[in-house]
Amino acid sequence: MSNTFGTFFRITTWGESHGPAIGCVVDGCPSGLKLSAEDIQRELDRRRPGTSDVVTQRKEADKAEILSGIHEGRTIGTPISLLIRNNDADSSKYEEIKNLLRPGQAEYTWREKYGTIDWRGGGRASARETATRVAGGAIAIKLLRTRGIEIIAYSKEIAGIVADTPSRNGSLEKMRKTIESNPVRSPDTQAAKEMEHAILTAKKEKDSVGGIIEATVYGVPPGLGEPLSDKLNADLAKALMSIPGVKGIEIGAGFELARMRGSEANDPFTINNERIHTTTNNAGGILGGISNGMPIILRLAIKPTATIGILQKTVDYAKKKETDIAVSGRHDPCIVPRAVPVAEAMIALVLADHSLMSGYIPRKLI
Amino acid sequence: MSNTFGTFFRITTWGESHGPAIGCVVDGCPSGLKLSAEDIQRELDRRRPGTSDVVTQRKEADKAEILSGIHEGRTIGTPISLLIRNNDADSSKYEEIKNLLRPGQAEYTWREKYGTIDWRGGGRASARETATRVAGGAIAIKLLRTRGIEIIAYSKEIAGIVADTPSRNGSLEKMRKTIESNPVRSPDTQAAKEMEHAILTAKKEKDSVGGIIEATVYGVPPGLGEPLSDKLNADLAKALMSIPGVKGIEIGAGFELARMRGSEANDPFTINNERIHTTTNNAGGILGGISNGMPIILRLAIKPTATIGILQKTVDYAKKKETDIAVSGRHDPCIVPRAVPVAEAMIALVLADHSLMSGYIPRKLI
Amino acid sequence: MSNTFGTFFRITTWGESHGPAIGCVVDGCPSGLKLSAEDIQRELDRRRPGTSDVVTQRKEADKAEILSGIHEGRTIGTPISLLIRNNDADSSKYEEIKNLLRPGQAEYTWREKYGTIDWRGGGRASARETATRVAGGAIAIKLLRTRGIEIIAYSKEIAGIVADTPSRNGSLEKMRKTIESNPVRSPDTQAAKEMEHAILTAKKEKDSVGGIIEATVYGVPPGLGEPLSDKLNADLAKALMSIPGVKGIEIGAGFELARMRGSEANDPFTINNERIHTTTNNAGGILGGISNGMPIILRLAIKPTATIGILQKTVDYAKKKETDIAVSGRHDPCIVPRAVPVAEAMIALVLADHSLMSGYIPRKLI
Amino acid sequence: MSNTFGTFFRITTWGESHGPAIGCVVDGCPSGLKLSAEDIQRELDRRRPGTSDVVTQRKEADKAEILSGIHEGRTIGTPISLLIRNNDADSSKYEEIKNLLRPGQAEYTWREKYGTIDWRGGGRASARETATRVAGGAIAIKLLRTRGIEIIAYSKEIAGIVADTPSRNGSLEKMRKTIESNPVRSPDTQAAKEMEHAILTAKKEKDSVGGIIEATVYGVPPGLGEPLSDKLNADLAKALMSIPGVKGIEIGAGFELARMRGSEANDPFTINNERIHTTTNNAGGILGGISNGMPIILRLAIKPTATIGILQKTVDYAKKKETDIAVSGRHDPCIVPRAVPVAEAMIALVLADHSLMSGYIPRKLI
Repeated sequence: MSNTFGTFFRITTWGESHGPAIGCVVDGCPSGLKLSAEDIQRELDRRRPGTSDVVTQRKEADKAEILSGIHEGRTIGTPISLLIRNNDADSSKYEEIKNLLRPGQAEYTWREKYGTIDWRGGGRASARETATRVAGGAIAIKLLRTRGIEIIAYSKEIAGIVADTPSRNGSLEKMRKTIESNPVRSPDTQAAKEMEHAILTAKKEKDSVGGIIEATVYGVPPGLGEPLSDKLNADLAKALMSIPGVKGIEIGAGFELARMRGSEANDPFTINNERIHTTTNNAGGILGGISNGMPIILRLAIKPTATIGILQKTVDYAKKKETDIAVSGRHDPCIVPRAVPVAEAMIALVLADHSLMSGYIPRKLI
Repeated sequence: MSNTFGTFFRITTWGESHGPAIGCVVDGCPSGLKLSAEDIQRELDRRRPGTSDVVTQRKEADKAEILSGIHEGRTIGTPISLLIRNNDADSSKYEEIKNLLRPGQAEYTWREKYGTIDWRGGGRASARETATRVAGGAIAIKLLRTRGIEIIAYSKEIAGIVADTPSRNGSLEKMRKTIESNPVRSPDTQAAKEMEHAILTAKKEKDSVGGIIEATVYGVPPGLGEPLSDKLNADLAKALMSIPGVKGIEIGAGFELARMRGSEANDPFTINNERIHTTTNNAGGILGGISNGMPIILRLAIKPTATIGILQKTVDYAKKKETDIAVSGRHDPCIVPRAVPVAEAMIALVLADHSLMSGYIPRKLI
Repeated sequence: MSNTFGTFFRITTWGESHGPAIGCVVDGCPSGLKLSAEDIQRELDRRRPGTSDVVTQRKEADKAEILSGIHEGRTIGTPISLLIRNNDADSSKYEEIKNLLRPGQAEYTWREKYGTIDWRGGGRASARETATRVAGGAIAIKLLRTRGIEIIAYSKEIAGIVADTPSRNGSLEKMRKTIESNPVRSPDTQAAKEMEHAILTAKKEKDSVGGIIEATVYGVPPGLGEPLSDKLNADLAKALMSIPGVKGIEIGAGFELARMRGSEANDPFTINNERIHTTTNNAGGILGGISNGMPIILRLAIKPTATIGILQKTVDYAKKKETDIAVSGRHDPCIVPRAVPVAEAMIALVLADHSLMSGYIPRKLI
Repeated sequence: MSNTFGTFFRITTWGESHGPAIGCVVDGCPSGLKLSAEDIQRELDRRRPGTSDVVTQRKEADKAEILSGIHEGRTIGTPISLLIRNNDADSSKYEEIKNLLRPGQAEYTWREKYGTIDWRGGGRASARETATRVAGGAIAIKLLRTRGIEIIAYSKEIAGIVADTPSRNGSLEKMRKTIESNPVRSPDTQAAKEMEHAILTAKKEKDSVGGIIEATVYGVPPGLGEPLSDKLNADLAKALMSIPGVKGIEIGAGFELARMRGSEANDPFTINNERIHTTTNNAGGILGGISNGMPIILRLAIKPTATIGILQKTVDYAKKKETDIAVSGRHDPCIVPRAVPVAEAMIALVLADHSLMSGYIPRKLI
């Protein structure tokens, strides 16, 4: 439920932004998977704050400790508990605005729902919780890799600047390298520079920008997905929509399909090397809720960071009166680059779940 | 799981397009709700085939029989079983193409997943199953109405023709009347004519068109939604993405938000009549996964109907060789108009579920 | 949830005792299982009322109609909807006592929970609903048989008369025949006569008796069960405790184990034909929540039928005053014999679920 | 699933006996509950090892650290993460027997299921995991207390010595004191001495004994329980059967009911102080799966500790050959006394879950 993602491969996350720690419990991972703290750290480091000018300057080592579920270097089928201590929380900035509703943020709705919140740094509603998704997702990524499934996401668009989509037939390793070579995680190095500039400009103006992440999943076999209610596209949409700031999801040609004719939109079937596939991929790898063996293609729209330094109109929740707010402190002027590994993690969680559900990945690897 | 939507208010649907019947079991509806077959029929009739030139000519009365869960005109808290007989199934057209993969359809993926399919009329993958969602959703609609929650969806765009969005402050009754007054279910009567024309043109050319449905939910209180994994937007995205043909979802300003700055995107809080709300609604009524009391606004992109009369390249699954296909028979040249009540039903199911989960609607109404 | 049993192989049941019909939806059955209405009818006929003097005289043919999920004689992976019409409901007897709480029955608690009930024949709380479990369970039984798993239950004790336990090494077919050869479903034909006499005596005295059912599951492989929360014994206990009238559950030596010493209770491991097993079976086939390959042995205590003709003290719920009640009508003087196929069905549902969860039975059989 | 108990109020537990730590995540606790580490420690201390001669001598402080979900002394509706470090694990004794199957223990079945185990101290199958249930259950106990629901369990029988059942009308506080005043947790101080003697005798003889725990829940309102599949008795049976060593469950008069007549077994309804209740309580507080407002009475049979010092026949799993085993080390000669708080915790988890599901306890307490 509420803080648990997945049915078969599932993570239960916990923790507040300025509490002592955050973490998650990964349950349902098959036994026999080689797993080390490094596997998790590699992904966490990609999402870590403070690594460039375009992201928040909060300093968190984000070291994940594995507390259970591993024996002699391999998973044993029991829950894997991951713990990340919060080290650089600075709640002082939040004390004075603790009753003010930050526009675009969750304080209002959470207060209405729970009657209370941990107002320090966004509490549980802070995007800091996504670190635990990345940690848990790293295990899913490793698991999927045993069957050759690979996920690559990147910034497709930031502040209106659109990156060229890289070829899906090239080397994945090379594509990953290019994406990681720039602070905005774009596969188009020229666009990357413009994106970086746009972010820094917004930052200087105490404002923020949004963007679009595109993700491709390679190596998915036909047959994953549970119609009707747990269609693969439906579960992906849910998982991605649960990422803070995501306001739109597309699969394949997405909204463009609404403007096409059927004769143009349909992907013709063909046979290649004795395997059935389609000559185009407008469907984005999913038909009738089930994977068709083509790459799965997804896009998610991310709104500009809500927390900005510009003065905004708002309300004091305690006094129930109108007021102004300008939030100083360390915020991401654009969360898109750091959301890239989060998107990959969520996609990995869904695919690991469906791979286990369908029996494509067995429950013991030894 | 697989054929069950929802946790607290849930429907389990069953049935193949050309089998003896389709139906669903609605479980979790509170006791004491007045409910009659007419409440369900009213919604089913909106989705029914054969009502105009722009939809399929299959003739189905789609009469729903209530088999349980009602006593003396009211629900009693037990499961409500709904049954709809299939009367006008014509499988003859499918016999000859039973091994051909219709491009854009689910035969290929279902065959890969299950090793077999009911090939008659799309079997379980046919959009005919959405009739049961509409039937079950009708109960959710009635339940939400006890708390003043109303859902209105319509064709926002068909074949590239965009309808003017109606004011959200007018009379809902009047808006509903306008939408139902034209066969494409658009609130913009001028655009409706153009949409109708575009559909009929595509039909004549044995082709099909797609479009965008927009839905608004009125009267939602602040506080619905279960962070982190069952956020209200995440559950809505999943429910809508599970509708056949949907390839994109937006909430509020959606993809447009990716191009805005934070200062523009954030909805400022204000107080009106002692209640907190926002002066704009780019968030589409949901912040941090929880409703904020503003209207919930959603858009879903629907691809053009996959089944068309134009000759397409495809594969014979049994012979594993390439061939052509042209599907005659009775198909919707555009499924958008009939998908409008389906979208409303799915939204109603999600909101009923969350209303019960949060305690906003109690489990007994008497 | 509430009316759904199981996670992977699951049935959702619906229907009131005197409503138009009862039924269930079986979801998660693998594709490719040969299945006919006869497979289901065979089990339903064992539970059917009116077949002897020791059971209720209500006349129900209990014919199950299969409405979906089967194509060309085999399951196709989609939900299987089963429908049983109620034909011989006689509500007249209930009209006059509709506000009286029958001692030992569920009217009071259901009224408190739901604020209302269908008072005709026990409504949803009637044991009539167990017919749908038997119908759904019949599919699980057929599925388990593809892997050689067989379940046999019988009346171990009725009205204090204890049957000799049959050898677990004999022919299952012969054991089944003996059990079905007498109206009380006991494997001990001598005890069966005494049990029958005890039931008829109680019936003549307008009273009722209870008993104990013992069930054995043969052919279970080691490794079924999901620690910690969904242990095999835990899921079996839940499923069996949900049968109306069950007040106790034992596994293996059960309560007797509480009085043994460890050295006596522990089943020593040994090797036979290169397979590990235990020389005794006090554990009843389950260790640490997971099957160990030995027969699973269970016992369930069933209380005497609550509805009796003897005058009892009770309360008029509407008037909130004390009164008397004596229920005439057609009731089972002992539900144990008819509960035998119900117990088998529930055990089959749990084992089918765990077989699928663990991958022991694949999700497609073709 | 697997390591998660409950639907609405749920705990996900993790950790191996000799790993770095064990813990759990409690999700679904309403906001506004006063909660401190002491509330959890109080219950943990009751289950702690090393407190008397009749329990294991492993020295664990079992200090629980609260890592999330609490702000300013109260719960805030977010997951509560609890961490308990393992301090006194001694794996050396297990090294030499790591391939031997301890009779009555879970090594065999876990190895079959997962292909591997953490063989140190029973790994995940060790009863050490129940500490996390007690920690999580302590929160449920505190929550139930806000509505006056109290649970009291005790050793009803150990090694065949039966304690007198205390009156259910006396002071709960006094009853608790008596139970905690002796190391076997029996309410009958005379029987307690005999039980203690029996345990120490078994211990001296390198053997072990079992027993029966009885639990009573006071203050439960009528109306808790979700028919049909999630009946209150069914959920209690599942939760209790998941405790290591439990092999039988009874509710109310339990197995004795199988020998009664209906006229004797039925609890007559009566009115007292304008409230309906029953004059006897053979049903143990549950009718038709729903609480009836009378005390809920349960009994669970616990087998003697499987790990004993006496030489037993067994099998070397790696070599697949027969051998002997005698386990030295620190074991409970009887786990019944320490299982008392575990039983209370599991009952509390089920009742908290159902109280939230039914709306009896709201989701925010402020």
